[in-house]
Amino acid sequence: MTITTEISEFTAGITSAAIPSPARRVLQLSLLDWMAVGIAGRDEPVAGIVRDVALAEGGVGAASVIGTQTRLPARAAALVNGTTSHALDYDDTHFAHIGHPSVVVIPAALAMAQQVGVNGRALQEAALIGAEVSIRIGLWLGRGHYQVGYHQTATAGAFGAAMAAARVLGMDAAQCAQVLGVVATRASGLKSQFGTMGKPYNAGIAAANGVEAAILVNAGFEGRVDGIESALGFGATHHGEGDMRALDGIGAAWVFESVSHKFHACCHGLHATLETAAGIDVAADDIAMIEVQTNPRWIGVCDQAAPMNGLGAKFSYATVLAMHYLGHRTGALGCYSDAICARADVQALRARVSVVANADVAETAARLRIVVSDGSEHRGAYDLEAPMDIAARQAKVQAKAAVLLGADQAAACWTLVEGEAAPNEIGAALTRS
Amino acid sequence: MTITTEISEFTAGITSAAIPSPARRVLQLSLLDWMAVGIAGRDEPVAGIVRDVALAEGGVGAASVIGTQTRLPARAAALVNGTTSHALDYDDTHFAHIGHPSVVVIPAALAMAQQVGVNGRALQEAALIGAEVSIRIGLWLGRGHYQVGYHQTATAGAFGAAMAAARVLGMDAAQCAQVLGVVATRASGLKSQFGTMGKPYNAGIAAANGVEAAILVNAGFEGRVDGIESALGFGATHHGEGDMRALDGIGAAWVFESVSHKFHACCHGLHATLETAAGIDVAADDIAMIEVQTNPRWIGVCDQAAPMNGLGAKFSYATVLAMHYLGHRTGALGCYSDAICARADVQALRARVSVVANADVAETAARLRIVVSDGSEHRGAYDLEAPMDIAARQAKVQAKAAVLLGADQAAACWTLVEGEAAPNEIGAALTRS
Repeated sequence: MTITTEISEFTAGITSAAIPSPARRVLQLSLLDWMAVGIAGRDEPVAGIVRDVALAEGGVGAASVIGTQTRLPARAAALVNGTTSHALDYDDTHFAHIGHPSVVVIPAALAMAQQVGVNGRALQEAALIGAEVSIRIGLWLGRGHYQVGYHQTATAGAFGAAMAAARVLGMDAAQCAQVLGVVATRASGLKSQFGTMGKPYNAGIAAANGVEAAILVNAGFEGRVDGIESALGFGATHHGEGDMRALDGIGAAWVFESVSHKFHACCHGLHATLETAAGIDVAADDIAMIEVQTNPRWIGVCDQAAPMNGLGAKFSYATVLAMHYLGHRTGALGCYSDAICARADVQALRARVSVVANADVAETAARLRIVVSDGSEHRGAYDLEAPMDIAARQAKVQAKAAVLLGADQAAACWTLVEGEAAPNEIGAALTRS
Repeated sequence: MTITTEISEFTAGITSAAIPSPARRVLQLSLLDWMAVGIAGRDEPVAGIVRDVALAEGGVGAASVIGTQTRLPARAAALVNGTTSHALDYDDTHFAHIGHPSVVVIPAALAMAQQVGVNGRALQEAALIGAEVSIRIGLWLGRGHYQVGYHQTATAGAFGAAMAAARVLGMDAAQCAQVLGVVATRASGLKSQFGTMGKPYNAGIAAANGVEAAILVNAGFEGRVDGIESALGFGATHHGEGDMRALDGIGAAWVFESVSHKFHACCHGLHATLETAAGIDVAADDIAMIEVQTNPRWIGVCDQAAPMNGLGAKFSYATVLAMHYLGHRTGALGCYSDAICARADVQALRARVSVVANADVAETAARLRIVVSDGSEHRGAYDLEAPMDIAARQAKVQAKAAVLLGADQAAACWTLVEGEAAPNEIGAALTRS
């Protein structure tokens, strides 16, 4: 068995009955989360540019595009929606391979599902399979691939997007292998684009490449079928480690289930701290001192003591803790502003926060010690890697969607997702203004 | 100066007056050659598949597409025309970096020129600049990039296509640097696709990626401007050698001038032999023995002694020499057939051919010794790398075009090319049936 045959047989062969409920539910949470961050990202400059370029090209109106009522061909819709949903960098993350599965795979699955006309259950299964593939391929490529400079979200993601599209098209394993071979010659995306419009665009091109590969093979295209693992294949040329343990249990265990959702619109280094604070209920007026213990890797990244603008606030333990205890919603995009940095109560509270590096604290974790006015202490800790109860997770994703979209629109999206609504209904919900 | 700044300033800054006539004329020969192999390739399976997929997408009719009267957006036209013109593998080659410049750069330049509406001279200058860039970037990436498995035609070619499109758009150096940065995150293409539809498709995706990058930057997209040479850039991630000597003399010397055109529709290993034979004028009936001396690398590649089908004939010194002396046109696609292998006169003559390996003969060269019936000997040698007189080259390219398209259509194409016809006229000539 090779990586290509394993992935192809999984994509083509897994039956609806073999997909467990928890994996389905996590996919639904990611679909709601994706809709929320996608719709919320529609006015970002990169989203507008890529959308306008795609609209200027035009083409058959097969699939919905975030931010416009005009439909476009599936490839183009995947390009725009992938870019748009990653524009805020507020989408889900899988830490095992370090990538954002949903912003690549869901746009491809949805666009292809709208173009082909499958039902809502088939859409969700295809998205789940594609997301699982993207993580497995990412694990197979390994940490070295990421460290040398490849943006796994896009490189591993393109294979996941392709398998989502292939599943929608009802392809057999031989066709899936062909699709993987085509993607192998065009999957791309570099980390050096981080901090520019190139990062979200990487997600868009991965989604679009996956769709185009599946459509070409569906039309009879024949490329190399071992394009990933062959001597001059994608793995060998792109510093892939080729660790076949990446496929352990595929089809029985779903690594996608441990995907992580972002609940705060700030630097990921601050999230564990905010989750810890959520578990320590003290009044702002009562706080004498807060000590944050964090992994040393975050020092110099997000420990600004007294930023005076919104961007700085997103990289400041002191500011986000003050915001939290003063009742501001750290999940809201507009919350991080120059105005909040100028508030006297924020400045007074954040002056009482100190940050301490502690190598015993994991990169994904934080510890808090809060001293209140009567001298008593409250302590807490949180690790983002810790399993979260599915109901708790659902509540948090729904709350985040409500903050981003408003309660009514968030509820309407969840109703569509939970009811396995048809792809065109999901698509239509993305385009409402 | 970096590779990005050098290439950007060359692309934006080179004036029309600074472009020498020989470089312009070689570009014209490559444009005619490209039109001929493109039109001749329109019925290849890969061309039909990619064209049909693009036509199914549709979109604004900005640019001409080989093999259909329907026009498509510039990006889509570049995709189809790049794929189609490389389908026969009969297009030009530059040996310095090992790549096919025209099949990537010309489709991008033409599609962009039709969409923007520049004149014929601007089109040809943009194509020339793009081709020069593709070779320079290929040299900068180096032989290691090619050896590890990257298809330089597509990887280096995407940067050339992008600069051709940027030149058509009249971009300044800062915008050109932006375009190069966008291409850096999506240039791709693997040699492992050789022998499949993936090889010509690589040319198409490179052309399309170049066009899309230029259009995005023209619409305001901002990515990484040092995406090629930065620490996690294209060069570092893609095994590039980063040899700045690749830029020596750029703008004054044109490396594109030494591009090589294929004049025989068979394995490149046979071309030097056929060129040698062209210089030894003996009658087939008179030939007692032919000895071919060739570099050992070609033994086992194209030394089949007595193939019985058309594909085998393309890999047989003995057969192509017999064909040549019996008056068959080795530049014609249909010439290599089962029927020709079955002819008694071909079989009789090729039985008198022997092939000898000689390490003193360059890979691009061949030596012939022909003994005729009176016992006298004729000797000759040819190296494809030897400079060819421009008039002789023109005559050979025109003759090739006439074989592929018929004399009338070839002459009409040359009239358009030599007269610097408007992009839409060149485009229309590609779509006639």
